Amino acid sequence: MSTRRAKLLEATCRVIALRGVRGLRVEEVAAEAGVSKTLIYYHFRDRSGLVTSALEYVNDRAEGYAGVSDDDDAPVRELLLRLLVGEFQDDRAVRENSAVWGEVRAAATFDEGLRPVLATLTERWLVELAEVIEDGQDEGDIPASVDSRAAAVRLTSLVEGLSGRWLAGLLTTAEARSHVAAALERELLPDAQG
Amino acid sequence: MSTRRAKLLEATCRVIALRGVRGLRVEEVAAEAGVSKTLIYYHFRDRSGLVTSALEYVNDRAEGYAGVSDDDDAPVRELLLRLLVGEFQDDRAVRENSAVWGEVRAAATFDEGLRPVLATLTERWLVELAEVIEDGQDEGDIPASVDSRAAAVRLTSLVEGLSGRWLAGLLTTAEARSHVAAALERELLPDAQG
Repeated sequence: MSTRRAKLLEATCRVIALRGVRGLRVEEVAAEAGVSKTLIYYHFRDRSGLVTSALEYVNDRAEGYAGVSDDDDAPVRELLLRLLVGEFQDDRAVRENSAVWGEVRAAATFDEGLRPVLATLTERWLVELAEVIEDGQDEGDIPASVDSRAAAVRLTSLVEGLSGRWLAGLLTTAEARSHVAAALERELLPDAQG
Repeated sequence: MSTRRAKLLEATCRVIALRGVRGLRVEEVAAEAGVSKTLIYYHFRDRSGLVTSALEYVNDRAEGYAGVSDDDDAPVRELLLRLLVGEFQDDRAVRENSAVWGEVRAAATFDEGLRPVLATLTERWLVELAEVIEDGQDEGDIPASVDSRAAAVRLTSLVEGLSGRWLAGLLTTAEARSHVAAALERELLPDAQG
């Protein structure tokens, strides 16, 4: 990605994280980035293209701070935990990412145009998590009776729910992380019906 | 509550569920309810009072459709399930309630004025659920090792997370309900560390 494009998306995220996506005006992003509106339209076509690109940008950025690399050889349960608790860190960028995601999710209730990108990125996260669970099953670290996709849906939904409370100051970072760890442990138990 | 006050709050919920809380203007609510702005200011003092009252109203309304009464003698696990899955119903009012809640939660990230009412109502929900778990423990239906409050935090956070996906069309009502049931089952297992 060009540096300019990245800078425009960083400015967009700052504006969304501060004031929400519904109030977002291209003028504000232009002012925040110190460029003309025309440049933004040139790069992202319209407001909706800008928001979609910002969400993808946030997603890529989140992969950087999850602390998991492709050739990581940590135990599978440890990897899963890191993939999930990475969302809760006392770090400005992490909090901003979480705020942008939460905001776009809430806005998608009202704005159907946001749903395709939300569906795609949510699915990517789910599949990533389910694949790690399946790796663990192949290696014998996770019971074969665990439904990898269902567990991934519940764990990622829990993270999203906790994230809303964390951002609103109802939960500390440590509390959010410990709830994720406890839920993960429960999801990886052998399924009685399995 | 007076009929007039209830009607004003219903109109407020419709406006929030349609367009979100950040775009909410007292004029719109007045137009939706067919009354003057002055009447709204008379009942709710200001915009923030209106939003707070609407959230409390939604909460009271939700208790009506959860299908749980104080003298209910259903098994505790069944009561818990009903308290949680009541949030997911193919019903306009339930969906609207959920949208209003989700919207206020998301807005609280940006608007600290919304946090006190959010904290109070979230706490009430948590305590209600934790008390039912404790009743089940007293009756011997739920293992004593279950941490009632921690389980309640996770289960309600999961419901909030699933709710966002459900409202955005990423999950069906049946899927959301079945994930809640599965998580509840896992939370009520004896805690290995307990």
